[in-house]
Amino acid sequence: MIIVLKSGISDAEVDDVCRRITEMGYGPHVIRGEFKTIVAAVGEERGRPDLRLLEALETVDSVMPVQQPFKLASREVRRESSEVRINGVTVGGRDVVVMAGPCSVESEAQVLEVAEARKRTGLPVVTEVLETESVELVAEYSDILQIGARNIQNFTLLRRVGEIGKPVLLKRGMATSIQEFLLSAEYILSAGNPNVILCERGIRTFETSTRFTLDLNAVPVLKKLCHLPVVVDPSHGTGHWDLVAPMAKASVACGADGLIIEVHPRPEEALSDGPQSLKPSKFAQLMRELRPVAEAVGRGL
Amino acid sequence: MIIVLKSGISDAEVDDVCRRITEMGYGPHVIRGEFKTIVAAVGEERGRPDLRLLEALETVDSVMPVQQPFKLASREVRRESSEVRINGVTVGGRDVVVMAGPCSVESEAQVLEVAEARKRTGLPVVTEVLETESVELVAEYSDILQIGARNIQNFTLLRRVGEIGKPVLLKRGMATSIQEFLLSAEYILSAGNPNVILCERGIRTFETSTRFTLDLNAVPVLKKLCHLPVVVDPSHGTGHWDLVAPMAKASVACGADGLIIEVHPRPEEALSDGPQSLKPSKFAQLMRELRPVAEAVGRGL
Amino acid sequence: MIIVLKSGISDAEVDDVCRRITEMGYGPHVIRGEFKTIVAAVGEERGRPDLRLLEALETVDSVMPVQQPFKLASREVRRESSEVRINGVTVGGRDVVVMAGPCSVESEAQVLEVAEARKRTGLPVVTEVLETESVELVAEYSDILQIGARNIQNFTLLRRVGEIGKPVLLKRGMATSIQEFLLSAEYILSAGNPNVILCERGIRTFETSTRFTLDLNAVPVLKKLCHLPVVVDPSHGTGHWDLVAPMAKASVACGADGLIIEVHPRPEEALSDGPQSLKPSKFAQLMRELRPVAEAVGRGL
Amino acid sequence: MIIVLKSGISDAEVDDVCRRITEMGYGPHVIRGEFKTIVAAVGEERGRPDLRLLEALETVDSVMPVQQPFKLASREVRRESSEVRINGVTVGGRDVVVMAGPCSVESEAQVLEVAEARKRTGLPVVTEVLETESVELVAEYSDILQIGARNIQNFTLLRRVGEIGKPVLLKRGMATSIQEFLLSAEYILSAGNPNVILCERGIRTFETSTRFTLDLNAVPVLKKLCHLPVVVDPSHGTGHWDLVAPMAKASVACGADGLIIEVHPRPEEALSDGPQSLKPSKFAQLMRELRPVAEAVGRGL
Repeated sequence: MIIVLKSGISDAEVDDVCRRITEMGYGPHVIRGEFKTIVAAVGEERGRPDLRLLEALETVDSVMPVQQPFKLASREVRRESSEVRINGVTVGGRDVVVMAGPCSVESEAQVLEVAEARKRTGLPVVTEVLETESVELVAEYSDILQIGARNIQNFTLLRRVGEIGKPVLLKRGMATSIQEFLLSAEYILSAGNPNVILCERGIRTFETSTRFTLDLNAVPVLKKLCHLPVVVDPSHGTGHWDLVAPMAKASVACGADGLIIEVHPRPEEALSDGPQSLKPSKFAQLMRELRPVAEAVGRGL
Repeated sequence: MIIVLKSGISDAEVDDVCRRITEMGYGPHVIRGEFKTIVAAVGEERGRPDLRLLEALETVDSVMPVQQPFKLASREVRRESSEVRINGVTVGGRDVVVMAGPCSVESEAQVLEVAEARKRTGLPVVTEVLETESVELVAEYSDILQIGARNIQNFTLLRRVGEIGKPVLLKRGMATSIQEFLLSAEYILSAGNPNVILCERGIRTFETSTRFTLDLNAVPVLKKLCHLPVVVDPSHGTGHWDLVAPMAKASVACGADGLIIEVHPRPEEALSDGPQSLKPSKFAQLMRELRPVAEAVGRGL
Repeated sequence: MIIVLKSGISDAEVDDVCRRITEMGYGPHVIRGEFKTIVAAVGEERGRPDLRLLEALETVDSVMPVQQPFKLASREVRRESSEVRINGVTVGGRDVVVMAGPCSVESEAQVLEVAEARKRTGLPVVTEVLETESVELVAEYSDILQIGARNIQNFTLLRRVGEIGKPVLLKRGMATSIQEFLLSAEYILSAGNPNVILCERGIRTFETSTRFTLDLNAVPVLKKLCHLPVVVDPSHGTGHWDLVAPMAKASVACGADGLIIEVHPRPEEALSDGPQSLKPSKFAQLMRELRPVAEAVGRGL
Repeated sequence: MIIVLKSGISDAEVDDVCRRITEMGYGPHVIRGEFKTIVAAVGEERGRPDLRLLEALETVDSVMPVQQPFKLASREVRRESSEVRINGVTVGGRDVVVMAGPCSVESEAQVLEVAEARKRTGLPVVTEVLETESVELVAEYSDILQIGARNIQNFTLLRRVGEIGKPVLLKRGMATSIQEFLLSAEYILSAGNPNVILCERGIRTFETSTRFTLDLNAVPVLKKLCHLPVVVDPSHGTGHWDLVAPMAKASVACGADGLIIEVHPRPEEALSDGPQSLKPSKFAQLMRELRPVAEAVGRGL
């Protein structure tokens, strides 16, 4: 951490800040510039007080971190990419994985009808867990536990799915920065579960022609910063069925390990998210068109 | 709802959209402009299918609502402002109410120390409820149930606090639009609890010199659209203790019914949110400075 | 336009609004819903007063447009895609076009050095025009006139490049909505210049791990709404050289007609934008990797 | 500047970075932490190469500034607040100054009609300069030169109004951070003109119930960071006439030195910005209500 001091403070005040840093368990290094004096605080941060509390002092201008606040997820700690295995399917390997289905379960018949599309691609079942107490039940009947965008900072729930060990699909919140996203992943990893898949699904911006702004930049940024698999949800991310195909191709082209796509036999009757769902015929066409894109970037589908 | 059709569609296609609107229980009115044909769908929306599903049709360009999607909270339905009474304190009445205290409970001694500040202003206890199953326990020991910014769209939790009937402090999420904020309030009201207090606490924008962008525009907008009391949290909203006093005064000046302010005897040792906490002496000074501002807009403190 | 009236207004007040609409040259159609009365105003908007002024009336709640405010750029008016021809190169045709070079001209030697990279790809010269009075001079020595992101709403400049007729590369501003972007293009088209190329180059959001948030959703949205060619600038859009290659591939995959890429022989000595510039060797590698992506979506390079 | 190096780089690579820093004219100080090595570069930045270029190196993770990039505007350099005097009116002094009038000049009669409102408050004339070549002409007939939000980074124009010396009203752009805003002010100051007034007028966010999000937090943040007067434009900032009065009061309460308010005798016929204009009677009422708010924070009107 870098502690930037206010201008014009006395030597005694610099000493006071250094003394506090030492008491908190870190080593202070003072650097005097022409206008500003800074103190670099060196030391492992885990298990020690948060240096940002020093911002509450009247002599401190700001406290700036110099390293990413996550370790287990970091590619600096683990160079090779992680793979998550689910029922014989590998997410994060050479092949791009596609998960498809309706947003809500509506009837038995519908599940069977959509399963036809899924059968051809051989994909696992993802179920969202909304509350800590239902984690075990959902884990029993599902291949992947999804943490929805609204629960990205529900740390009780993150810890619980971390303890369960089942693959977790972690969706970025609509106002979650990439750094906060990785901190939430770190929370699951540190509870003992290495099977975390990150999912970009759109952020909220001033642009209203799409439901959210699907942030594909997040794909290469996440692949650079961490070793976890990254998938993209262009259906929720854009909110319009006719944008799903081009953004799915773009996701694969910039390095996504997988896609989550809403498919519904009769979108205009869907219980939720109809306007962003593909009909099965259009989904099948997208699958045909995606394959050459995946191959163009050295991957299979 | 206004259903905007795509250009160049045939009369038979217009008829098909009208037939669907009728089947969904609404009355269609076709208006043909020079370039666009629109269909206005008239009828009560509660208990009928959502017309926005029509966006999934290839003949429909977009579906636009013409009225606010909330009723119970609306000032069009109830002209006079609502008041919420807590232990003899009225929120939403003539006097501006100030709630103060530390963000986290840290020790028994600290609670007693801060209680001194609170004793002089005579304020109720607010406790955040994080999970549906703890609502009843928290309701037993607390005067106000707080729904935090992260749970603004946790509809299970909103319904539960709606059933309990105890006063609810509903905090706006950092990516929640004012319309979505009022929809969440509507959810609590429709479960039978009229005692809802809205709290503006900052939204996420590109500006980084403050932790969030405290959106004071929300105060007069909310007072215009709904009849519920509106309070402001300038501590979380700005993230810096030295911005709390000016933004607290601004909140009162633009019509806020109350304030929530972080106070901590030793901010640099706080378990959380130290940099945004006021010391008790600065809080006492703010109280002295707030009174004339409240009086300038015709209110007491 | 749909004029939404306030609740509880009298018949005389509705008549007053209709009278004003008629006086402005439009035909009013009143639709009475259960809670709201709306008036649809029908008629060509060009050359008539802006109906949004009615929002200044105390009886009017809001005024909502039902059609896009641009015509010449609209795909509803012109179905087939436009092509812009520059020195034998076609932007908007089957082949994806790549424009490359340094952001600023630094020396004669550097221009020659970078020209080597350009020679192999055979690309035209783009020069930004900053002021209305320099449009003619720049037009004389340049193949394409660039309107930078900061001038996207400089209507004097837009009109001037519209009158000149030379191809224009119009860069989206960092806070420009897609609708506003198309309105700026409409301004150039209506001055008589059909040779407009749209360029997505990143919008400002809360995310700080990239310099801007390159909004690739804009590519298919623009291709759906208008008939103009769309190119992407992943260098300015991301601000980091190591994100340029993946986002360039994604741009092509979602339908971009071209790319603008910063190339600099010694990025660490660049006068501007060094951190986002590719070295010539990395640029050559990107060109090799882009070709199969273009072919995967049915295009050449 | 703090140069954060990538993990796992060799001593020779650290030496290479230090050598480059020395060549650029700064003094390097290496600090080795448990996971990260950083180099603090000490020295005056004016007239030397920008250290952020080092981000183009593959061994550098990021470059972080530790001091504000503006000097002349900084309150650290000049403690006392600046005052700008215009025709006997002082902006930045004890009294809050109100500037009022229509957004566009529409006719001679209208100018005379609105002048009545202005006469009672005794206010100077503000005119926007749109192009560099018209600066001198506008300066001749106007008391204050306004730089509009769209020109906030038009550095040619900023330099020109800096050379003229006449008071400048600098409006924040809708996507301009506070730091960038102060950099633009610095540009005018460094051209020799100390008479700069900053104006907050709303930023673009995801919230659509107001035209922009008027960011009142900017007022105390600017007053903390710099010594220049700060005024607020609640008319453009909110876009709705009925939000002008509450936000004007809030502006004064949080420390604004002045207000700019749109007034129009017949808003529904205004050439531009009618929906946000106050009628003269409502403006007169606002003036009466503002006085006690100004007095409550120790100021006059």
